[in-house]
This record gives sequence, C-alpha cells and structure tokens, in this order.
Amino acid sequence: MIVYGRNPVREALRGPRTVARVWASDRAARDSWLRDAGPHLADDAALEVSDFEYADAGSLLRGEDALVLCLDQVTDPRNLGAVCRVAETAGAAGVVIGERRSAQVTPVVCRASAGAVEHLAVARVSNLADYLQGAKREEAWVYGASSAASAVPYDQPDYRGRVVLVLGSEGRGLRPRVAAACDQLIAIPMRGRVGSLNVAAAAAVLVYGILQFVRPGLTGFHKPGNLAPTDKA
Amino acid sequence: MIVYGRNPVREALRGPRTVARVWASDRAARDSWLRDAGPHLADDAALEVSDFEYADAGSLLRGEDALVLCLDQVTDPRNLGAVCRVAETAGAAGVVIGERRSAQVTPVVCRASAGAVEHLAVARVSNLADYLQGAKREEAWVYGASSAASAVPYDQPDYRGRVVLVLGSEGRGLRPRVAAACDQLIAIPMRGRVGSLNVAAAAAVLVYGILQFVRPGLTGFHKPGNLAPTDKA
Repeated sequence: MIVYGRNPVREALRGPRTVARVWASDRAARDSWLRDAGPHLADDAALEVSDFEYADAGSLLRGEDALVLCLDQVTDPRNLGAVCRVAETAGAAGVVIGERRSAQVTPVVCRASAGAVEHLAVARVSNLADYLQGAKREEAWVYGASSAASAVPYDQPDYRGRVVLVLGSEGRGLRPRVAAACDQLIAIPMRGRVGSLNVAAAAAVLVYGILQFVRPGLTGFHKPGNLAPTDKA
Repeated sequence: MIVYGRNPVREALRGPRTVARVWASDRAARDSWLRDAGPHLADDAALEVSDFEYADAGSLLRGEDALVLCLDQVTDPRNLGAVCRVAETAGAAGVVIGERRSAQVTPVVCRASAGAVEHLAVARVSNLADYLQGAKREEAWVYGASSAASAVPYDQPDYRGRVVLVLGSEGRGLRPRVAAACDQLIAIPMRGRVGSLNVAAAAAVLVYGILQFVRPGLTGFHKPGNLAPTDKA
C-alpha cells in the first residue's frame, strides 16, 4: 500500500508496518524523521508499506474497561478515517467495521485519520450483529447511537465495564438487526434544525462524554459522574 | 451564490435567503419539498440564492447563557462547515470567524455543514483578539483550546454564564495574541499517539461536554455537573 501525506507518512514510520520505499519532496525532507528514512525525491511525502494488518475482533474487549467503536456500513473512507482519529485520540480499544459495504483501511482512510490508524486496532467482522451478540456474551454492554424514540439521552447510562458503541452511516442509521442487537439505544440531543451530526463528530461527542464525564475514574480525570453500579446479568 | 447538494439545498429553501432559481435532477425532484420549488432539470440539486448574510458579532452574546464558538484562522472550508454543523446542532449562539486568513461562507462550506449555516449566526470580525477583549467586557468568559502546559483539562471550568470558546487551526493552534486574550486555556486529553483532533471533532467534544455535562441545567438535561458558582469580577 502507498501511504501519502506528511502526517500519515510520519505515523506509518512510527507504527508497526514494514517500509519498502520512502519518497519526499526537498521541503518535506527538512524534517529529520523523514530525512533519516532516506527518501527518494518526489513531489510529496509517500511510503510504500506492507498492507494494513487488521486486528482480531475478539481481542478488542480483553480489557475490563475497554471501549470499542463499531461502524455499521459507513462507506465514506473520510468518515472512517475521522472516526479512527477520534478513537485513537480518545484511547478507545479499537474500531470494528464490516467486511462488506463498509470503507476498508485504504490510503484515503490513512490520510483522513492523520495517520491514527497506524496505532489503532481496526478489526473486520463478517456480520456486525453477530459480533455484538458475542460481545454481550463477553459481558460488554452494547449501545447503539440512534434517533429512534426509544433512545435515551447518551448521558444517562453509566457505561460501566466493557462498552461497545455502534454508529450507523449518515442518512441510514443502524440497520434493524444491528439496532436489535444493542442493549440500549442512545441519542445525542439535537437542538438545531439540521438534526444530525457527522458520524465522526458523533463519535467524538459520545466517546469523550463517556470517558471524560460519565466514568472519569477509569481514565484519571476528576468528575464523580453517574457511577451507580449496574449488574450485568 | 449557488448552493448545491441535497441537504444544503433543502436547508437553504427552509432558511432566510432569497431564492432566485432552483435546479434538480428527476430523481432529486421526487422529494416534494424540492418538486414544489419548481426546479429546472439538471444533474444535481442546486439553488441560486442571495449572498450569505453574516450576523452582527455584537449580537451573539445577548443571551445570558450564550455559547459562541470562535475560529482563529481556520482556512479549510470543510473544517469551517463541519464546525458550523456542530454549532448549529448543539444549539450554540453562533460562530465568529476572521475577515482575513479564514475560510468564509462559500458553497463548499454550505455543503460541508450539511446546510446548517442557513440556520446559524456566523459573524465576521476584523480582529479576533479585539473581539475577545470586548466579549470579556460583556461578562463572557473566554476559553481557548490549547495544548499548552498551562491549559487545564476542559472538564474543569464551570462555564457559567456567557461562554466564548476559541479554536485554532490544525497544526498552528491559537496565535499568541489570541491565546493571551483568553481567560483560560483548556485542553482535551489526548490518550493516543497522534496527539490531536480535527477542529470540528474538538468543537464537538467541547460544546457537547459543556452543554450536556458541565451545565446541563441550562439546556434541560439532567446531570448536576460541576456548578460551583464563580464570580466574574
């Protein structure tokens, strides 16, 4: 795969992939991290690297307080990249996508993520609803972002323990079978007239809301939040 | 100005602009809101509308709990559009941009905002630092998003009363004079290796964090949050 652009190239050099070839412009090669890689001259920074290695979906929920983001048929690679950037920055355990009808980790995604995919576990599953059922058996709570009337405001659940957040594509939302596999549907309050956020903005709202305010004790911040215990039967 | 794309056209038809001419494809004209506008046949939905009317920057802080987003030299129109979408959806009072070295409200911005700019007050100022000084005289608290060591985690301030949030461009951050005009610098915790969020994702984290968790009493939601009173001298 060819990774291109300054940030994606920097992160790919810092990440686990095998590098076959490096290109850079004279200007880009002023940065020592790029010059030291011995680039060939080109118009832009670029890397030929080994293919992106997807993570094993089963491994993402190992941590007792792991937070995993799942995308249901998000086909726009820029949206996938932007969500990966949010997930990596927020400290999520990983991102799960479908093998079909979903954007995969391409160079466009690497770029849109500002290189964050190089340091993030991204896993593919053949059937997202089945994955969610499996996650529930592993004692994760599964929350689906939704505008359905049955959804509760996203700041109400306590999000204890393993958390899986599922976001659908813009316009279509969650497929019925995916929504049905969720323990609870959650909604982001919309106070304007447009009525929806981009999927990456929604991911940012939810993940930071959960990690920073609702269960900050797990992430080293200070607010007590809403930590009433819940039993996962 | 020509506004194009389904969502931007729908919102422009619902908003305050004067419409001169409407275009739509046969497929797009299946939607009654577009068919009823009497479109000319074209490949895509598009509108010729009056120029975008900027709001008066002085009017944005009238509400006692107004929250205003300011962008310091954000030049990418897609980022401006995405921030406007977050601001409109979250119920912010408006967005302030500079007259120079900033993206202005162009058709690309309309599209990137999914039409949200049609329902949002966007104001231009000749000097952002001066605007912030004026906002402080109007009893607003001004918070600048920053990765500086002096920044406090964004969930610490109580954000009572009028709030102005300032975000810089990716890469450069806030200019020194703009940062110096802030009452407090605030940071979004970064737990990954990439170390930054896109400006629209950062805006989403901050605005929803403030409106949903720190001062939810003002927006009709339920968490008591951190509402210790603060005196603005």
